[in-house]
Amino acid sequence: MSRVLKVGILGATGTVGQRFILLLSQHPGFTIHALGASPRSAGKTYVKATKWKMSQAIPAEAREMVVQTCEPQYFNECDVVFSGLDADVAGDIGKCLCFILRADEMAFLKADLALFSNAKNYRTHADVPLIVPMANPSHFSLLNHQRSNYKLSKGFLVTNANCSTTGMVIPLKALQDAFGPLSKIMVTTMQAVSGAGYPGVSSLDIMDNVVPHIGGEESKMEWETLKILGGLNQDATEFDLLKTTKVSATCNRVPVIDGHTECVSIEFERRPAPSVEEVIKVMENYRTEAQELGCYSAPEQAIIVSRDEDRPQPRLDRENGKGYSVTVGRVRECNVFDIKFTLLVHNTVLGAAGSGVLLAELAQKKGLIV
Amino acid sequence: MSRVLKVGILGATGTVGQRFILLLSQHPGFTIHALGASPRSAGKTYVKATKWKMSQAIPAEAREMVVQTCEPQYFNECDVVFSGLDADVAGDIGKCLCFILRADEMAFLKADLALFSNAKNYRTHADVPLIVPMANPSHFSLLNHQRSNYKLSKGFLVTNANCSTTGMVIPLKALQDAFGPLSKIMVTTMQAVSGAGYPGVSSLDIMDNVVPHIGGEESKMEWETLKILGGLNQDATEFDLLKTTKVSATCNRVPVIDGHTECVSIEFERRPAPSVEEVIKVMENYRTEAQELGCYSAPEQAIIVSRDEDRPQPRLDRENGKGYSVTVGRVRECNVFDIKFTLLVHNTVLGAAGSGVLLAELAQKKGLIV
Amino acid sequence: MSRVLKVGILGATGTVGQRFILLLSQHPGFTIHALGASPRSAGKTYVKATKWKMSQAIPAEAREMVVQTCEPQYFNECDVVFSGLDADVAGDIGKCLCFILRADEMAFLKADLALFSNAKNYRTHADVPLIVPMANPSHFSLLNHQRSNYKLSKGFLVTNANCSTTGMVIPLKALQDAFGPLSKIMVTTMQAVSGAGYPGVSSLDIMDNVVPHIGGEESKMEWETLKILGGLNQDATEFDLLKTTKVSATCNRVPVIDGHTECVSIEFERRPAPSVEEVIKVMENYRTEAQELGCYSAPEQAIIVSRDEDRPQPRLDRENGKGYSVTVGRVRECNVFDIKFTLLVHNTVLGAAGSGVLLAELAQKKGLIV
Amino acid sequence: MSRVLKVGILGATGTVGQRFILLLSQHPGFTIHALGASPRSAGKTYVKATKWKMSQAIPAEAREMVVQTCEPQYFNECDVVFSGLDADVAGDIGKCLCFILRADEMAFLKADLALFSNAKNYRTHADVPLIVPMANPSHFSLLNHQRSNYKLSKGFLVTNANCSTTGMVIPLKALQDAFGPLSKIMVTTMQAVSGAGYPGVSSLDIMDNVVPHIGGEESKMEWETLKILGGLNQDATEFDLLKTTKVSATCNRVPVIDGHTECVSIEFERRPAPSVEEVIKVMENYRTEAQELGCYSAPEQAIIVSRDEDRPQPRLDRENGKGYSVTVGRVRECNVFDIKFTLLVHNTVLGAAGSGVLLAELAQKKGLIV
Repeated sequence: MSRVLKVGILGATGTVGQRFILLLSQHPGFTIHALGASPRSAGKTYVKATKWKMSQAIPAEAREMVVQTCEPQYFNECDVVFSGLDADVAGDIGKCLCFILRADEMAFLKADLALFSNAKNYRTHADVPLIVPMANPSHFSLLNHQRSNYKLSKGFLVTNANCSTTGMVIPLKALQDAFGPLSKIMVTTMQAVSGAGYPGVSSLDIMDNVVPHIGGEESKMEWETLKILGGLNQDATEFDLLKTTKVSATCNRVPVIDGHTECVSIEFERRPAPSVEEVIKVMENYRTEAQELGCYSAPEQAIIVSRDEDRPQPRLDRENGKGYSVTVGRVRECNVFDIKFTLLVHNTVLGAAGSGVLLAELAQKKGLIV
Repeated sequence: MSRVLKVGILGATGTVGQRFILLLSQHPGFTIHALGASPRSAGKTYVKATKWKMSQAIPAEAREMVVQTCEPQYFNECDVVFSGLDADVAGDIGKCLCFILRADEMAFLKADLALFSNAKNYRTHADVPLIVPMANPSHFSLLNHQRSNYKLSKGFLVTNANCSTTGMVIPLKALQDAFGPLSKIMVTTMQAVSGAGYPGVSSLDIMDNVVPHIGGEESKMEWETLKILGGLNQDATEFDLLKTTKVSATCNRVPVIDGHTECVSIEFERRPAPSVEEVIKVMENYRTEAQELGCYSAPEQAIIVSRDEDRPQPRLDRENGKGYSVTVGRVRECNVFDIKFTLLVHNTVLGAAGSGVLLAELAQKKGLIV
Repeated sequence: MSRVLKVGILGATGTVGQRFILLLSQHPGFTIHALGASPRSAGKTYVKATKWKMSQAIPAEAREMVVQTCEPQYFNECDVVFSGLDADVAGDIGKCLCFILRADEMAFLKADLALFSNAKNYRTHADVPLIVPMANPSHFSLLNHQRSNYKLSKGFLVTNANCSTTGMVIPLKALQDAFGPLSKIMVTTMQAVSGAGYPGVSSLDIMDNVVPHIGGEESKMEWETLKILGGLNQDATEFDLLKTTKVSATCNRVPVIDGHTECVSIEFERRPAPSVEEVIKVMENYRTEAQELGCYSAPEQAIIVSRDEDRPQPRLDRENGKGYSVTVGRVRECNVFDIKFTLLVHNTVLGAAGSGVLLAELAQKKGLIV
Repeated sequence: MSRVLKVGILGATGTVGQRFILLLSQHPGFTIHALGASPRSAGKTYVKATKWKMSQAIPAEAREMVVQTCEPQYFNECDVVFSGLDADVAGDIGKCLCFILRADEMAFLKADLALFSNAKNYRTHADVPLIVPMANPSHFSLLNHQRSNYKLSKGFLVTNANCSTTGMVIPLKALQDAFGPLSKIMVTTMQAVSGAGYPGVSSLDIMDNVVPHIGGEESKMEWETLKILGGLNQDATEFDLLKTTKVSATCNRVPVIDGHTECVSIEFERRPAPSVEEVIKVMENYRTEAQELGCYSAPEQAIIVSRDEDRPQPRLDRENGKGYSVTVGRVRECNVFDIKFTLLVHNTVLGAAGSGVLLAELAQKKGLIV
């Protein structure tokens, strides 16, 4: 058995931070050691500092922990630091993020800590892996280069992807592995309000309504997909972004609490394209390093394929695999491309905090956490 | 001034029928003369027979009218008959429809009545025009052929399109007129619950949820578009369906009361493709016969283009043009095709009852109602 | 015909301010002359300064008006000033309010303007009438005293009540007029999110949820009722609050956009208590000065009584009387008190902006606006 | 350890039946042995017969069980039979219920089975206990009389209460035990849609809406409370209904999926009335036979009292005690009575299926199941 890791959580009072606390409080391999939030929260107990919005109660071990500011000095004893901060989130959490991001470029790297970040800010950085744990764990191998570049002995920075990207690239990676490159990807999302944090989306904006725009989301989906589904050069010092795949995303907010639904149409380079049944089989049989290395949070099936004509549905399927599985349904032929299907991802579990947790489990299994 | 027409409404107690009654009660050119519904409703006053679900009260003139069964004999004095029946609607309205559809093939044609039908059943028929009033009113010219074929002197049967198709083909027709044929159309819809009638969608199915499937809807959108955007042969005796346009539709139900939102991506045959600004201008300047002939219900603008990044929204835009305009927003370049945009159509006004009313106004202006 | 009055609106960009603009833009007796909002909005056109959230579009006359700060100097030409500010509203609108309220105590009274305020701050003031236009318009008579006290020639300050109080006191006043004093009033409300302004209630707080608390609301309902249903002393210089009536209120927020529903149980002093039918008749026949003086916005019926067992409902009844009627249903005997019933009030029309408009109409009819 | 009991579930495909299956599939003391539903479902596997609407997946052991009709012969081997049928549920489940209820009066009693029924039909019967397991388990003692009356050796019929009644009587019983009789109880409920079964409440009736009426619910709450909080005669052959307590209930449906919220005001006979703090303490310290006998499903605390001003909330508190606790908040003085508070009960766990399970656990502990 591997040793229990001490973990810190940045942005612990936000929506993603709350999910981190829930996931980690039930986790045998991690123990919550430090909580960071905005200066306004610092010095308070967690129960006082947070407006808890999860349907399960605040875990007992977190209630009375004292919240710190997001400065490295408070996280020195942590084996792993998770950042639940999201650059899109409004208000003082956002301000806190700015602080961190200014801080971490120097302070954090000097502190030599292992940071898993959910924030968008470093995803596009040439030295920072953008990893969806059940899609491209091979990108961990760039960390050698990162460490030598930044003169780190045990620290590193890994980012996870945007929640919507995360859900989509898992089945796409399965298909790319089996059938070769995709030439075209068109996706329209229907995203849950929890993705915008708290208070986030006003009830007056979303009740009896759809908001056909989420700031920055479409370009994230379009760009992140190319990095995640792309490869590394031979020395594992550079990312090779996909060059022949075109991605077009349209992102909408709908009145759903948790769970992003995504309607995807794809075209393969390969001719003839695989059949519906071949696509389903590949998805159902898809196994990743997370399963093979026996990561604690890895779901039995990375992708659950439903053959019911009206699934996946957020309310009924978001807890599949404890929120760590992607549920795919309606796999069928597309009149314009080859195949279309609908997928569902739990946006704050697999799409955010859960990816961080799974990345940390993978990193530990791979011997990256010392 | 043209004379005031007596109108009958079939399926008067359903969701679409209620909308017909609202629209017609405020209409200077029509007077409600007869109401038809299922045998269970027949013989009751309208107020007793219907479970009224509109946010405006039942119009006074309809309250005490006695509901009839949907048999031609009760509609003999009507200049126009609107059918608000929908084949998808469950329960005894559905049964009533079956009855009518059995009945009308003979009885109704013999009765020589002018019927505008919202039901899907005859849309695909080779002798029946499928007309979206602000897209393909030229298809009225097939009625000569229909009348001679069925030996009708004043009667005819015209169908309007599915609610989602209706919203989409109006901007597409504007673009096709201006820039020539479209080669590819990809659409993902987020449809309101009122489209399923009453009781329709269970609250347990749609609260905090998305249902990624609406029975038969996708194939309707894919096929109807080809008939509506297609032409007629020279004698106006046959429809020429589009042959080079591919359409792929994905239809979802979302927790919205009224108003279908549709995310559309298109590719033109023409190279280079028109720019975003050219597309916007064509949509804004689009005028149809309905405007030119001065139809009472025709909105000032068939298409309203919003340049706000987060519009259209069902709650804020569905009443545009009193529910008769299509609102388009987010016109922008598509990474995969040429242009993408999001549109909103009021599914029970322009998408159903309102199309019937506008068709009848057009038919009268064109001298088809005698 | 009385002359058209120039009106100013304070808090014009908020939820209540938007409702004022809608109501006034369609009003033959008023013309919008000046708009005030927070310093952040000042200097911008209204369309740029506001996040419009109404389902009807911004009225043309307001779109390009330039918003001012809420200082009297910008409202000097106004015959009437409406304040749509609400002290509960968060953020910089709230700050703006603080500013006004500091300002107006001196500056505004010196400016000698006629102000109708929706804010709670002066409702409890001994020299300020708290008037629900269809309940206690007789309280206007205290304005003589107010004017002499504050050395005003044409200005005055009148407040309208809290939205929930407004809905309740109208039927209670009708019953009190007919049957004498009430000894006990117990009310439980289910209030719409629009009552909290914008952004107001977070979607994460109210979707699939009820929030059983609205800050300060219960004490407002309990206290305001005693002032409104009370009288004046003989000189009309002091309010006589009810002393023998006990009121207990419980206020909840529910996932409804507009329209507060209130379940009321009452006990009369009189024995035997009136019957259900007597109560219904009194409510149906209730006419107020607003009707008798022919106020433009006064609904035909102040109280609409439904005998359907499942009404009133917010979505179906909030527009009754264009939002100016109270709809009452389920009038029946109470096992504990005498009578119970459920009422619905449109919280931003009759419950806020509409009360202001109706108060101004009454004041004009009564010769108070010079 | 007591032996594992074989259980049957009537109405297994309905909303309450689905909840029974979830609760029982995870229960160490019961094993699901037989499933009954309408003739239309009979002969199908459970996965085919049911429209599963729970957010957790169908338990593996139930998926392939073959559903039977609700006839005693199929349940002969069951130690316990739970009836999840609800007389209010529409459609063919309702028809199935009629069948059972006709059937059971003779057939079922002859079959000598132990039946725990959630249906309303026998709650008022003079020989049938109406038991809320954490309120009046003492009423089990009437079963001797029932058995001798109906010549049963091991069978019996026990009913649980209406979901709203269940939530309310638990804190009321705690207070009555501590402070003596209540003279007046006034309650207004805001009930979840799952209480109406599936399809149940139409989305068009409840989105952006409140329905101020639930058929039969108010009289159930008013009457059942008197039986549950009442006693038995000395021989345990008759129920003594409360005679001096008056109960008035108003029941509303709100857009919430699970969890009924209830606003309660009470007056004690005792003078002076207990203080807010005394009331809170009694509720917090309330322990019942279910806790004392160590029933598996009994929550640690029957009543959880929150001191946060905005709790309980359905989305955040319905899972408290795994759905078996009542959460109480806002305990405060009432201007009209003595004390008011708001409570939340999970309507399909503690309010329906969970009460059945807990009753069976109690019955086994008491030696009633042989």
